[in-house]
Amino acid sequence: MSDRQLKFWGWGLEGEGPDAEATKKIAAALGRRFGIDDVPVASPPTLAELSLPAPRVARPDALEKVVVDDPHERARHSYGRSYRDLVRAFRRDFSRPPDWVAFPESEADVVSVLDWCGSKDIAVIPFGGGSSVVGGVESAIEGHAGVVSLDLTRLDQVLEIDRSSRAARIQAGMYGPALEGALRPHGLTLRHFPQSFEFSTLGGWLATRAGGHFATRYTHIDDFCESMRVVTPHGVSESRRLPGSGAGPSHDRLFLGSEGTLGVITEAWMRLQDRPTQRANASVVFPGFEPAVEATRALSQSGLEPSNCRLLDPAEAASSAGGDGKTALLVLAFESADHALDAWMQRAVEICREHGAEVPDEAIRTRTDAGASREGAAGAWRNSFVSAPYARDALVAASFISETFETAITWDRFADFHQSVTSAVQAAIDRICGQGALSCRFTHVYPDGPAPYYTIIAPSRPGAEIEQWDEIKCVAMDAVIDNGGTITHHHAVGRDHRPGYDRQRSDVFADALRGVKSRLDPAGILNPGVLVDPDGR
Amino acid sequence: MSDRQLKFWGWGLEGEGPDAEATKKIAAALGRRFGIDDVPVASPPTLAELSLPAPRVARPDALEKVVVDDPHERARHSYGRSYRDLVRAFRRDFSRPPDWVAFPESEADVVSVLDWCGSKDIAVIPFGGGSSVVGGVESAIEGHAGVVSLDLTRLDQVLEIDRSSRAARIQAGMYGPALEGALRPHGLTLRHFPQSFEFSTLGGWLATRAGGHFATRYTHIDDFCESMRVVTPHGVSESRRLPGSGAGPSHDRLFLGSEGTLGVITEAWMRLQDRPTQRANASVVFPGFEPAVEATRALSQSGLEPSNCRLLDPAEAASSAGGDGKTALLVLAFESADHALDAWMQRAVEICREHGAEVPDEAIRTRTDAGASREGAAGAWRNSFVSAPYARDALVAASFISETFETAITWDRFADFHQSVTSAVQAAIDRICGQGALSCRFTHVYPDGPAPYYTIIAPSRPGAEIEQWDEIKCVAMDAVIDNGGTITHHHAVGRDHRPGYDRQRSDVFADALRGVKSRLDPAGILNPGVLVDPDGR
Repeated sequence: MSDRQLKFWGWGLEGEGPDAEATKKIAAALGRRFGIDDVPVASPPTLAELSLPAPRVARPDALEKVVVDDPHERARHSYGRSYRDLVRAFRRDFSRPPDWVAFPESEADVVSVLDWCGSKDIAVIPFGGGSSVVGGVESAIEGHAGVVSLDLTRLDQVLEIDRSSRAARIQAGMYGPALEGALRPHGLTLRHFPQSFEFSTLGGWLATRAGGHFATRYTHIDDFCESMRVVTPHGVSESRRLPGSGAGPSHDRLFLGSEGTLGVITEAWMRLQDRPTQRANASVVFPGFEPAVEATRALSQSGLEPSNCRLLDPAEAASSAGGDGKTALLVLAFESADHALDAWMQRAVEICREHGAEVPDEAIRTRTDAGASREGAAGAWRNSFVSAPYARDALVAASFISETFETAITWDRFADFHQSVTSAVQAAIDRICGQGALSCRFTHVYPDGPAPYYTIIAPSRPGAEIEQWDEIKCVAMDAVIDNGGTITHHHAVGRDHRPGYDRQRSDVFADALRGVKSRLDPAGILNPGVLVDPDGR
Repeated sequence: MSDRQLKFWGWGLEGEGPDAEATKKIAAALGRRFGIDDVPVASPPTLAELSLPAPRVARPDALEKVVVDDPHERARHSYGRSYRDLVRAFRRDFSRPPDWVAFPESEADVVSVLDWCGSKDIAVIPFGGGSSVVGGVESAIEGHAGVVSLDLTRLDQVLEIDRSSRAARIQAGMYGPALEGALRPHGLTLRHFPQSFEFSTLGGWLATRAGGHFATRYTHIDDFCESMRVVTPHGVSESRRLPGSGAGPSHDRLFLGSEGTLGVITEAWMRLQDRPTQRANASVVFPGFEPAVEATRALSQSGLEPSNCRLLDPAEAASSAGGDGKTALLVLAFESADHALDAWMQRAVEICREHGAEVPDEAIRTRTDAGASREGAAGAWRNSFVSAPYARDALVAASFISETFETAITWDRFADFHQSVTSAVQAAIDRICGQGALSCRFTHVYPDGPAPYYTIIAPSRPGAEIEQWDEIKCVAMDAVIDNGGTITHHHAVGRDHRPGYDRQRSDVFADALRGVKSRLDPAGILNPGVLVDPDGR
């Protein structure tokens, strides 16, 4: 993806993100914001500081080219990018790396690795970009002879493009930018921009039911998936390319969200879109959160389907968009590759005005261009959006807890839900950290409810970051589940959300999943600890 | 649903549909169309003509009120409404009715019936409206001590309405009209109008992944389902009401399309819509099928999302809309409860014109009304659409084969697919029946492909209807599968499509389903023969 190496301890590429100087400035700013003198700043680990244990299992000769024990790769594949992961990296805690990292270059290689691991009771952790924030790619697995991280990023080609149906057959290991780069010359785009876009892969998106940054319709990766190829220890499964089907339960929906526990996605036919050429944007200020929520509900039910309908609560509007702490901000946008959007935006603004927003006509911008879709205001916002995770590493260095959790809830329950969740979580933050900020935005809205996304920033006690984070996380998880939400809207379950997920899903469904697992992964080697435990484990 | 009894042998209610006189007229018209003198007209069976075998298993006393052996009900629950089913009914062949018909009035009753059947190895056929055209509710099951048809239609209430999220908790046994009737006072609609609307149920729609009559978006019932309650022999499963979620593979998508093989759906929270008040319609004539297909593709990819975008090929346009046999007809419509549709229709018509259609401005009709959505031109069309199945009974009486099969295929392959399927099926019709008509329409269109729907009408040899139909059906099934389509877009798999389905799904996925089946229905009593055979059967 670049000549530069991926960091083994934090977000993205070596040399990118805040350097020591910038990190100090961020730490100082946090200190001023929270009234703390002398915020300590830890420095990130170097490879030389780590002592990795030797692999516990031998590598078969036949897999010499595919399976490596390079220390950088073993360290990098030890963790995902959750807060817990970053803190452990800063603590130089790499005591349980994968024994080996496999880089298959073909589906046959994937089959060989699974065969090897199946025969030796080695756990396999499918790994795309490794950007999981929920413990989805943890290598410290108990109960197996060894652990192999199965990195799919050498399966990185667009294999076929069907311009007429607007679809492409894409290998699972492609990172976002390379994927979009390959589609651009054809005037096509997958138009899936999760915050991890630069450092996550198609296969990871599919396995975790990732959400893109668009607010309505065409946002979860689920809906873009036309068919999939999945290698399981029991054989290879392929679904037909179909625009729609009613033939039995959906093949693909069983593997979407399976988080590497049922098989390894090697490629998929993905539904694409024409690159947008028409845009309309408006930033709409509401006098408070409540009328803004009602306006957003009306927009979500209008059938207008804005591409962006991101609502920032007063706290979030203040911290990230210069709000006054009382007003809420709605970022509204439409995009099209086909038609001018005046009628759409006009009606959307009318709805906002009906709900108490003052929208001066000059706040509405419409544009027509044939240029690249990453340019312009929306593109700039998107660029800052996808580079945000770099900044988090600085918060970790400064011993600030930085955590986000997202959920979804129907409109009728949102007000009570929000009240219960924010009061429980704020109380936990205050109790555990003394102080801290909690804010909310809607990242996605559906006709039947929003997907609220909460952000926590709180000073933690150096050395106790993980314990404090764990405690807050636990309160947030219980609050979300107790109040009827989903444990995750688009970050997946992994190991971190297992307690919440176990309460959310029905026991019957868990047994159904175990039934599938017993057929496709009878030895239980695939991503142990995630989603469900197989029989007898 | 009415004071009148449901027919046990054909579509709908006693006293509705063509009477003897009307049937004779239809037969004569078919005779004229196909050049056949003296078309015979069979009369439908009466209950007195049947001799039903006695139930083979005893009914437990505790279920006396729920489980009945009324002859009319046993006869009515013997078959669905496929061509094969209707012919067998006309032949007075009711030799394998269900031993009993259960009418649970509560979820507890459903549990009791499953417990009884599980303990006595009695097969259970979940039954909604019984409108299956794919052998989904066949009672002639081998290998079990008895067969019970489990009729859900007494679970017929809307239990809760959430106006704010536009959702309702609805029992699975509600027929379409009652369901819409209960929502209408709240200004809401499920807006799901399959052709079987009057005589099919919510539970049936969910179990079979039914398609409504709208052409784009919001058409498959899958997308309307917010959560479900399912009684399985292994326990009751309930998913959370969520507008969206990324927590593991979707609960609901496992049961959607499970066709009664994994559990019995008892209720669901369904996503609703506001009743449309704005409409725009146009009937667009194209000089031929090819440019019409291209226009339809462009419309499907425009992001305009017409509510109707039904393309009739020249044969279909001629037989059902007065076309000249050369021109194709596109029925185009937009509906909204929120905004005027001029911009939408204007751009859609522009796209049609770009593809060679002449659309005079007066062919475009827009309307605003606060009235009931079933009124008006679209409503009239819908009423004729949902009453069409009555006419089929007359074709059966006249020994004409009347069959439809539907599929979906990506745009890039459509032309070849259509050519291969129509030439294979037409050749089969000519060989087997001497002559017959084959036509095509698109019932649904997706950005990546259409859902073509084929209609066959052909004179059959009296007494050999089923054999001739079987032979044609077999050719159609092979042609669809050989050329990359799905064995069903919205009619489900049932027993009739099993051979095609077995070729379509991957073996790995079949084993996954068997894994689920082994946990949720370990005795294998639920709808045997449909979708997959459990282990050891």
